[in-house]
Order: sequence, then C-alpha cells, then structure tokens
Amino acid sequence: MREFILRASKAFTSDFNLNDLPGAGRMDLVCRCISSALWVSNDLRRDARIFVVLEGPPSPPRTIVFDGKDLKGVSPDERNIASHIKIALRKGLDLKLNEEREVSPGIKIAKKSFESLIKEKCKERQVFYLHPEGKDIRDIKMKENVAFIVGDHIGIPRKTEKLMERLKIQKVSLGKKIYLASHAIVITNYELDRRFE
Amino acid sequence: MREFILRASKAFTSDFNLNDLPGAGRMDLVCRCISSALWVSNDLRRDARIFVVLEGPPSPPRTIVFDGKDLKGVSPDERNIASHIKIALRKGLDLKLNEEREVSPGIKIAKKSFESLIKEKCKERQVFYLHPEGKDIRDIKMKENVAFIVGDHIGIPRKTEKLMERLKIQKVSLGKKIYLASHAIVITNYELDRRFE
Repeated sequence: MREFILRASKAFTSDFNLNDLPGAGRMDLVCRCISSALWVSNDLRRDARIFVVLEGPPSPPRTIVFDGKDLKGVSPDERNIASHIKIALRKGLDLKLNEEREVSPGIKIAKKSFESLIKEKCKERQVFYLHPEGKDIRDIKMKENVAFIVGDHIGIPRKTEKLMERLKIQKVSLGKKIYLASHAIVITNYELDRRFE
Repeated sequence: MREFILRASKAFTSDFNLNDLPGAGRMDLVCRCISSALWVSNDLRRDARIFVVLEGPPSPPRTIVFDGKDLKGVSPDERNIASHIKIALRKGLDLKLNEEREVSPGIKIAKKSFESLIKEKCKERQVFYLHPEGKDIRDIKMKENVAFIVGDHIGIPRKTEKLMERLKIQKVSLGKKIYLASHAIVITNYELDRRFE
C-alpha cells in the first residue's frame, strides 16, 4: 500500500466555485495531486491512497481521503475530482475533532490536522518527506508499505518540519529539478513501480 | 530542446464548453499533457515544446504548439490551458493546409496533419514513440534534442504506426505499467532530467 499526504495550506474548507479552482486556494493543484496518485491507464491504482489536508478558510483543518481500492465513478479531470471534494466538504461541515465520515465509495472526510495525521502514519508505516534537499529516492531503501508527504506551492511550515524531524521522517529527493506537487507524485509512483513490479 | 507530440484523436477542432472538457473529445487529457510537458515548480521548461494534433470534429486537423520558451500568462490548471486552446481554435478557423499562425506569445496553430508533422520532425531530430512494447527508456541512447510521440486514450491507428515504422521511429517504454498520457510525459521529462542535468 502506497500513501501520499498532501498539505494544501490554502485550500478552501467550505463551498467553492468549480469554475475557479485556482481561486479556491489552489484547489486545481489538489485535484491534480489526487489524479496523479491514483490513476493509471484505464484503471485506478488499487494499492494507493491519498490524504489531502485542507487548511484554508473558513474551517480548517479538513482531511479528505481518496482510496483507490474502493473509489467509483470519479474521473481524472480536475473539475470532476473537485466536484467530489465539494460534496465531501458539505457532508463534513459538522464534524467534531478527529471524527471521520464516509462520503461515497472510497472517499472519506475527517476533521484532523496534518500533525495528527503524520503522527498516526509514523506508527503504522515508513514515512518519507519529498524535499529537494533529501537523499536521492534511487538510493533509499524502502518497503512497499510507505507514505510520502508532499508540500504544496507554499511548502511545509518550519514548525511542522521540526515535528517531522522529531518523528524521524526522512527527506527524499527526486533529483536536481524541483517539480510541481502533482508531478512529484507521478514520479514517486513511477519510481516505486520500477522498484517493485 | 525536448518536444512532445500528442495525437488527440477526438479533441474538438472548434468551440467547446470550458465546463465540460472531457465532453470536448477529452480536452481535459490534452490540457494535462500540456501542463506535464512544460511546467516545473515556479517556472516553465524553457527548453520544451508540445505539439497537440487535434483530430476531432468539425474541421480536423489542427495542430497547436505550446512553446515553453515564449509562453506567458498561462497557468497549469486544465481550465486555463483550455481557454487558450479555445482562443487558438477560433483564430485558426480559416487556416489553409499547412499554414501556421501565431496566436499569442508561445502559442501557434496550424492546419497540419499528424503524419506531416512527424515526417518533418524526423528530418530535424531523433523521434521516439512512447509505447508499452518499446525498449526500456533507461536502456536507450538519446540526445538532448529529441521528440516523443504520445498516443491518447485511443492510441495511434495501425496505418500511422506503419508510417512510423517506415520512418524508423523507435518505440520506447517506461516500464511494465501503462500510464495516462499526461503521466507518461511527466515521467519522460523526469528521465531526461536525470540523464542530462
């Protein structure tokens, strides 16, 4: 099982306009990351899951999970994915802290912070942080059961990076170039495909 | 200079609805491929260019070029890229065969077929065809000055594949998995980054 954890610092946590995804705190970026994590040609990656922690206004945090194992009726285009996020946010309006709710097959929403989520993940699997200063992914030992943390266009705040250091989350790089978050996810999936298939 | 050539078998060649890109002959796929070819974090790939041959109704073919060297004012989200394709198609309505027109900085449209385009490309650079049955990209000798042909969700027709064989265009694969066209472009860019940077 591969997992991706995206911190979307500005992504809206209530209703937004499907005709302006960049204006909804870069919801376009969020949708592309989901598509990159889960889709292959004519199928979904049944062994992959992506957690998106939305931290924008008005009621952060909200963590939405798209799980390739159970997902149905979703297309890889930004607008379609965004429409599912919209529904999830609406259904998760009254969540209590750390409560989780199933929205539709393969989609869940929780009121959970990024920090709580990564602490949980560190107990159950190897967690890496995709970062240009990390060790080259091609030189890293890893299991198939892993999670990768991905920052958005703003990046992870220093305070949270310190927590990640305490949790011994290792930084991993994809080479010299710095990629869009969604492309970094495609490349990470590809490097794992090359290694394990 | 890296080039990508996408054959978009069903993509509309006249006006379309920005709220339904999949319904415009999978214009969503076209937009994602453009974004994958040209964007990196906070910048464009100034050494990359993508040709999209639109072959859908009502007046195929139309070939649109997005050139990272000159592109300005375009964002990597599907809707924004689609809005530029819409403008290009409108400005290219009255093109004569093989005529080319500049639409805005870094965007041109021509009435040119996929077959004419690849014949031209073979005269000026190494051309590869991304295909699951090809030789592994990691085992292939290539120069920095290359072009990659990418099929869409439908693929390249047998007749055109035969032309490609006559032109000695080599098939290249990205491993065992079959990827979305846009992801295949991200991975190809990544493999070239690893090799040349």
